Amino acid sequence: MKGNSPIRGKVYLVGAGPGDPELLTLRALRLLRSADAVLHDDLVPVEILARIGRETILENVGKRCGVKRVSQQEINAHMIALARGGLAVVRLKSGDPSLFGRAGEEIAALEAAGVEYEIVPGVTAVSAAAAAAGISLTDRRSASQLVLLSGHRAADAPPEIPAPGATGQTVAVYMPTGSYESLAARFEDAGWPRTTPCAIVSAASQPNQHVWRARLAELAQVPRLAAPALLIVGKVTAGTAALAFPTSILEPEGYVVTL
Amino acid sequence: MKGNSPIRGKVYLVGAGPGDPELLTLRALRLLRSADAVLHDDLVPVEILARIGRETILENVGKRCGVKRVSQQEINAHMIALARGGLAVVRLKSGDPSLFGRAGEEIAALEAAGVEYEIVPGVTAVSAAAAAAGISLTDRRSASQLVLLSGHRAADAPPEIPAPGATGQTVAVYMPTGSYESLAARFEDAGWPRTTPCAIVSAASQPNQHVWRARLAELAQVPRLAAPALLIVGKVTAGTAALAFPTSILEPEGYVVTL
Repeated sequence: MKGNSPIRGKVYLVGAGPGDPELLTLRALRLLRSADAVLHDDLVPVEILARIGRETILENVGKRCGVKRVSQQEINAHMIALARGGLAVVRLKSGDPSLFGRAGEEIAALEAAGVEYEIVPGVTAVSAAAAAAGISLTDRRSASQLVLLSGHRAADAPPEIPAPGATGQTVAVYMPTGSYESLAARFEDAGWPRTTPCAIVSAASQPNQHVWRARLAELAQVPRLAAPALLIVGKVTAGTAALAFPTSILEPEGYVVTL
Repeated sequence: MKGNSPIRGKVYLVGAGPGDPELLTLRALRLLRSADAVLHDDLVPVEILARIGRETILENVGKRCGVKRVSQQEINAHMIALARGGLAVVRLKSGDPSLFGRAGEEIAALEAAGVEYEIVPGVTAVSAAAAAAGISLTDRRSASQLVLLSGHRAADAPPEIPAPGATGQTVAVYMPTGSYESLAARFEDAGWPRTTPCAIVSAASQPNQHVWRARLAELAQVPRLAAPALLIVGKVTAGTAALAFPTSILEPEGYVVTL
């Protein structure tokens, strides 16, 4: 820690949560305040970066819109070099580091290099999206499972959509890429009824948070929402009672701030 | 809030996170400190309950080992009565309220009663379990999806185990019930190889945290771990390199505190 660095440095893979600084964990905030260096992704908002200690080295190692600024190998090498210099390094990832955060590759590099590390879990985006939409992701009456998948995949392959299970399930697509129309078509190909309710939440927990509801067949009519966005598909998105599902689908909920 | 209660009360469905008080969100801590009443589940540890304001009404409405102390309908009625009395009520759930927390039933009751509510997301158990085991739950090279399911289901039906997907997936079973042997058999029936690596994490993030690794065929030999426990199945649990998987499976990792 600052002013009192151990001889051996350490890397903390820290979840920043979904965006609202109030959804940082106490541990994440303490580490941000005391770290010697913070390497963060693009999706971590400035309101969280503002919590970092004044003398802390702050570097954006993220990529946006698929344009890589720093390669994964360069990030790994940089983290390791800083830790070997005796620094307490926070590798700050949006959401939870273990979910769609490429932590596996960073852990492998840290282990290979013999650098001490610790994972600090965070609130993942789907939890914030569910909170925004006022839904439970599982329900013992209608969804016994939750499937999380990413719109991004290695080699640009489309995500594999699971068939609707016999006991009901909810599917959440992190970072849906391509058109909502083609995503909806893949759900239909996997056996999901065209009437299945969905929610699209962008910027969950942030001031520009935005929730749209539609049925699969209507997804194509939803305007493309700004990243980070998340698509939730399944009965639970209809709300707590089927009657609560809006008949007019193109009424956005929540508040929108023009950026 | 205390000393300044609005005329209309409000219910906050708050995630307490996996157990470590340091994994509370800033918002959860603020609400615990300012609430007029906190209704909590059994799994929320005393270290978190100790953060509650001194004048706050504190009630355990949880159940343990399947023995219900207070029915879900009674919890709903109680929350609503307190909020109608003008109180700020925190309904504190372990982990994230939207995941296996029966939030759907509480939201439905609050909406039917016209009581204002807000969901405050928390760190879910599987994120803490992955952090404890030093693994990433998804990996663009070996697991494009994560499936979350509960060992508990309505009408005591066993959980439906998904088949291993073509693009790889990780399955996490919250609160595995029954014997590990019968759970392993259900994974094998669903097409998972007997050599699939698994991790069982009990009390993730808490002082008595305990991580065991085994292959599916060896799960029967793992001693029954104390609740809350979580079983993670899939290649990612082998660690970041297949070579890192221990050959001796019955060596517990981490530290154990006898309760």
